[in-house]
Amino acid sequence: MQHKKRLFTPGPTMVLPKALEGISQPILHHRSKAFIELFGEIRQGLKDLFETQNEVLVLASSGTGAMESAVCNLCSPGDEVLTVSAGKFGERWGEICDAYGLKRKTLEVEWGSAPTSKQIQTFLSENPNAKVLFLQACETSTCVNFPIEEIAKLTRTSNTLLVVDAVSFLGVSPLSMDRWGIDVVVSGSQKGLMLPPGLGLIAMNDRAWALQKKSKLPKYYFDLGKELKAQQKNQTAYTASVSLMVGLKAVLDFFKQESKEKIFLKHQKMASAMREAVTAMDLELFSKSPSDGLVAIRVPNGIDGEKIVAQLRDQYHMTIIGGQDKLKGKIIRIGCMGYLDVFDVIAVFSALEKVLVSLGAKISLGKGVRVLQEKLLGALL
Amino acid sequence: MQHKKRLFTPGPTMVLPKALEGISQPILHHRSKAFIELFGEIRQGLKDLFETQNEVLVLASSGTGAMESAVCNLCSPGDEVLTVSAGKFGERWGEICDAYGLKRKTLEVEWGSAPTSKQIQTFLSENPNAKVLFLQACETSTCVNFPIEEIAKLTRTSNTLLVVDAVSFLGVSPLSMDRWGIDVVVSGSQKGLMLPPGLGLIAMNDRAWALQKKSKLPKYYFDLGKELKAQQKNQTAYTASVSLMVGLKAVLDFFKQESKEKIFLKHQKMASAMREAVTAMDLELFSKSPSDGLVAIRVPNGIDGEKIVAQLRDQYHMTIIGGQDKLKGKIIRIGCMGYLDVFDVIAVFSALEKVLVSLGAKISLGKGVRVLQEKLLGALL
Repeated sequence: MQHKKRLFTPGPTMVLPKALEGISQPILHHRSKAFIELFGEIRQGLKDLFETQNEVLVLASSGTGAMESAVCNLCSPGDEVLTVSAGKFGERWGEICDAYGLKRKTLEVEWGSAPTSKQIQTFLSENPNAKVLFLQACETSTCVNFPIEEIAKLTRTSNTLLVVDAVSFLGVSPLSMDRWGIDVVVSGSQKGLMLPPGLGLIAMNDRAWALQKKSKLPKYYFDLGKELKAQQKNQTAYTASVSLMVGLKAVLDFFKQESKEKIFLKHQKMASAMREAVTAMDLELFSKSPSDGLVAIRVPNGIDGEKIVAQLRDQYHMTIIGGQDKLKGKIIRIGCMGYLDVFDVIAVFSALEKVLVSLGAKISLGKGVRVLQEKLLGALL
Repeated sequence: MQHKKRLFTPGPTMVLPKALEGISQPILHHRSKAFIELFGEIRQGLKDLFETQNEVLVLASSGTGAMESAVCNLCSPGDEVLTVSAGKFGERWGEICDAYGLKRKTLEVEWGSAPTSKQIQTFLSENPNAKVLFLQACETSTCVNFPIEEIAKLTRTSNTLLVVDAVSFLGVSPLSMDRWGIDVVVSGSQKGLMLPPGLGLIAMNDRAWALQKKSKLPKYYFDLGKELKAQQKNQTAYTASVSLMVGLKAVLDFFKQESKEKIFLKHQKMASAMREAVTAMDLELFSKSPSDGLVAIRVPNGIDGEKIVAQLRDQYHMTIIGGQDKLKGKIIRIGCMGYLDVFDVIAVFSALEKVLVSLGAKISLGKGVRVLQEKLLGALL
């Protein structure tokens, strides 16, 4: 039937229609004048979005590629590095560092929580020779935000550089690379930027570029020095992902037109209303430091979380995501990132309530939805 | 902000994505082989949809153009004709007949009601020389369905031909031109067919074609004899609306793939749940013989119906429609035609409740939505 598919995923998220239009235009050649002009505008738009004077490099890769580029461009064999394991993506930083044989120290944090800046301070002072601290702005697997602004205050005055994975944070919540003093910010196209996957983004400050120049880890496709030289001339070292970049331009125009602040506020209001709805449904929130891009809900006792995900998919054509690894079956995650609005949020909660009732949960149909009606309708979002 | 626009209008309705894709393809020439093949498939698809062996002609016009083509192709100067005035579109039949100077008799029916087949029987027997009876399958202005199958039983054995305006009925609810014995069916692209406006459709049986051949009213663009000759060769008399016809092909494929019956059932279930939700909200339904394509609700006393429409538009980017002419401000009409699903219906009721509360109506937020959750979620639609 004419079922609309709705994605409430941490990524890929639903694509901005103007971006879809851009992507489906007849293709530009990546050495053409039109592309060069477009890229010039994209470069400025990305600087505005990252709030930085540094160059934001665009890679034809996923966010993980951009993460790896940070590791192999900043480090040299034998370097000591720090990671924080509070979820799957913190572990990914660890795996990349291990793949390059770096000396890794890891701060273990309970999944569902964020490290405090106090914990990070201790971690840094216990490892004064660490070259880089890799962590997340939002740990997607647990829907947890880290106190990045506080942490950057510590690293700014330390010898350890701060690399932030903002893949599920950029475009969702405020981030100010220069003002906060983050050394490296990494992101991707398929979450807050409402684009298909395929673009990695990385911005580095002077401290990071100084390290980059001395870095001795092997790299070719992810050689950021080569990319910087090319991209400063509105070109890429290797063939650019042209169509996605036309889409990226549309997204950056959208952020400019609507204003970032309004978009961030929208996420904040939607996520906060979703959390209130969860509480009204007598369900439990999982994240102690919740993201505004996605909400993690503990699956009620006696109910199989995978069944919730499957029923929403099979019966209502809605994609939400369950827990990963040790959280499998224990939480569900509902995103409010991407091209979605308050009525999509009402839709997914109306269906979630129905699914939970059908699975035997003792919840009263309509209670969460009513909270969303109260909180999200009325004031314009 | 990234507000999704949602249309709950009687037409144009939201367009099927596959049709949008088709429409945006590089244009075909209307004399090309590709177009001729496409048109052949469209002709068969339309016959299946109208449930007829007669040719269904495609006009580059709105539904009103197709209505006029019925009048000027069936009638001759001085002919006696019958119309039924139960709303704005019944009146339109009258206006077209008047424009051609025909002798018109009109059955007046209270707006909100349908004529009974008994009333039509009397009307026909009181006017035995009437050549044509023009009426609606669904009177869009009042959201009222006429008992067409019953009425066709009367006209089949009378000398008066039956012309049915099915503009807001075709593709919404079951209609069987041949089995019911309707002489002429008229429709358009922008309602149940989920296409932009711009295509008129008209099918005539042998009795009607016999009249057409003798008709003496002036016509050129709407000369259906000329169109029949051209369209039997998969061509049009004048330039075809090529892009919309590519979209029409996608819609006909959709009806075939999903099955008409399933689509009709979906409308029936959605409209019936909407009516139950209206009652649960302590509001009053307007139509005594309700359509399954759109629901008319009496505006509660003391509330300005135009304000409901304006607030839904300005605040929630949803388009519903108020009453026309004498119903202005007194009813609101919410459609469930076009490319929309149960969650769109939940969205519009969630917003309607909020708007009504903000305008001072004594309704309890969430009551209608809960009915929709109960009735529409669960069984796959």
